[in-house]
Amino acid sequence: MSEDVFGRFVARVRGQVDAWLASWLEARIEIARRRGPAVHAVAEAMAELVLRGGKRLRPALLAASYEACGGEGGADAVVPAGAALELLQGYLLVHDDWMDGDDVRRGGPSVPARMAERFPAVPEAASVLAGDLGSAWAIEAFSALTLAPARAMAAVAELGTLHADVVQGQVLDVCAEANDAAEVEAVHRLKTASYTTTGPVRMGARLAGAAEGQVGALAAFAEPLGIAFQLRDDVLGTFGNARVMGKPSGGDLREGKRTALVLHAKADPHASAAVAAVLGRADAGDSDVARAVEALEACGARARVEARIDALAREAREALARAEIPAEKRTLLEGAVGLLTTRER
Amino acid sequence: MSEDVFGRFVARVRGQVDAWLASWLEARIEIARRRGPAVHAVAEAMAELVLRGGKRLRPALLAASYEACGGEGGADAVVPAGAALELLQGYLLVHDDWMDGDDVRRGGPSVPARMAERFPAVPEAASVLAGDLGSAWAIEAFSALTLAPARAMAAVAELGTLHADVVQGQVLDVCAEANDAAEVEAVHRLKTASYTTTGPVRMGARLAGAAEGQVGALAAFAEPLGIAFQLRDDVLGTFGNARVMGKPSGGDLREGKRTALVLHAKADPHASAAVAAVLGRADAGDSDVARAVEALEACGARARVEARIDALAREAREALARAEIPAEKRTLLEGAVGLLTTRER
Repeated sequence: MSEDVFGRFVARVRGQVDAWLASWLEARIEIARRRGPAVHAVAEAMAELVLRGGKRLRPALLAASYEACGGEGGADAVVPAGAALELLQGYLLVHDDWMDGDDVRRGGPSVPARMAERFPAVPEAASVLAGDLGSAWAIEAFSALTLAPARAMAAVAELGTLHADVVQGQVLDVCAEANDAAEVEAVHRLKTASYTTTGPVRMGARLAGAAEGQVGALAAFAEPLGIAFQLRDDVLGTFGNARVMGKPSGGDLREGKRTALVLHAKADPHASAAVAAVLGRADAGDSDVARAVEALEACGARARVEARIDALAREAREALARAEIPAEKRTLLEGAVGLLTTRER
Repeated sequence: MSEDVFGRFVARVRGQVDAWLASWLEARIEIARRRGPAVHAVAEAMAELVLRGGKRLRPALLAASYEACGGEGGADAVVPAGAALELLQGYLLVHDDWMDGDDVRRGGPSVPARMAERFPAVPEAASVLAGDLGSAWAIEAFSALTLAPARAMAAVAELGTLHADVVQGQVLDVCAEANDAAEVEAVHRLKTASYTTTGPVRMGARLAGAAEGQVGALAAFAEPLGIAFQLRDDVLGTFGNARVMGKPSGGDLREGKRTALVLHAKADPHASAAVAAVLGRADAGDSDVARAVEALEACGARARVEARIDALAREAREALARAEIPAEKRTLLEGAVGLLTTRER
């Protein structure tokens, strides 16, 4: 099955990227240590977050796209580019956790939580600087690539663009308010698809020296996939199985996220009231949250989002069918559609 | 005189970089505008800060180094790289102003001040994101270079390293406390020299395809120059002419900066007491501040810092004398030593 094919590919890339990052970050931490205990603490916290986990989906998509475009040497040749994506994500997570006041990330303390403990006088500055360091490291790591420099430079341009996109998506999410499901998708496209699917796939294609048409064809596959991935995240954040997710259902409601689910519910007076009673209330009671979750199901909001995920997955598969890539690589990328849109956590 | 030569060179580079940035940022703002009013406001504030001024010393040093290493096409060929440095500086200034709570920058409202007005509910997140956008734009702008890609990639590595260095310098400055003048210089090396002199000069040399030895020779010139530049800034921040600087003397004292001046004064009981009475007190009276400023002069702290600036300038000139570059370019870079270490503001 294509999902298993992609699953095995992800596992292989994860092993390579994790090993590369462990050794590369060890050298960075040594540099930081010589610069004094404060620098060491910030660098160590950032590195630890990056090494603590994450599925490494982004490096895998980059590598799969690279292979689909006939990139020389296969996935092995683009490990530093995948590592750069993980460092970039580490930076985004740290700034995100600081903005949201989240203390837990990847099953451990978030970097802002660690900074608050280590630098009680300047926890916020230390948190933002830890993120900034991750952003700088992403460029340093990327420059360790030993591919043809013209291709590497084309991928640098993509890296700059995806970075600008994701920051603007975060602005939309934090500083503006989505009014309908279409606006939610605009945020998902910029804030999630940019650095999760579209950017990595475009970078992989550029690194392989793909022609403009092929880059565009793969991007047409990647963008709906990235939006569907985030919609799945929204569904899990509300309906997720507490045991599998490691956090209670309805979490997104308590956090006040205006997901597509919440916006669809606006048309239904009962669901709308049930949601309003708990939205953004961290101390909302379990039974009230359960009622809101049920109402989102009963009013058809969940079904609408599931239908939209299906439509986006279909769009991704159709774009893939049109792309001129070897059949074997098409199967690999098809597996990503299954894995990213039907995951349980 | 070499200072005039470098002054004219800076003016020429400034014209090119300003024109390039104006047109390039106009296109970025148009992209942001289509993404909604919040994104537009953040992008516009960031772009406006970058276009509002700055001496463009960093692009000039990059371009001078490029020419010194025989870079093809001269300064004209590296304008996007200089623009990238200005965007990077914009990002650093925004995160800096947010950390310090500074409302004024480059003779106008700082980006955090504008964000507080535009996004009263999330001023801090908007400020950090504006900076993040500048950081992303730096990479995008850099990738507009049309030089030999192998050279561009070598400069990308330098850009990543200088970014990591300046962030770690900021950590040292904000999260730790310098105990003596040597530790102050360690901060200056990382926080100022990295992105003001060493990084730009190394990038210029890489873009010209300079050999490792030549890159090192120019870095040996740039690093003491950058430290001297920041020590001059410290002297101006305490003794600066209020009329020329546009802000009262003793400003650094009220802001609580532990400069080399302040640390040298620790050895003198009278100066130490006079400084302690105003250090970090925004509401300190003018006469008390004036007394502290006089004490820093009387105890010899100013003379020690001036002597150190002279020694560093000499070190830079000696390194330049050893570098294998054309005489005309040596004169150009010698001018930078004069301009950066004897400036009045």
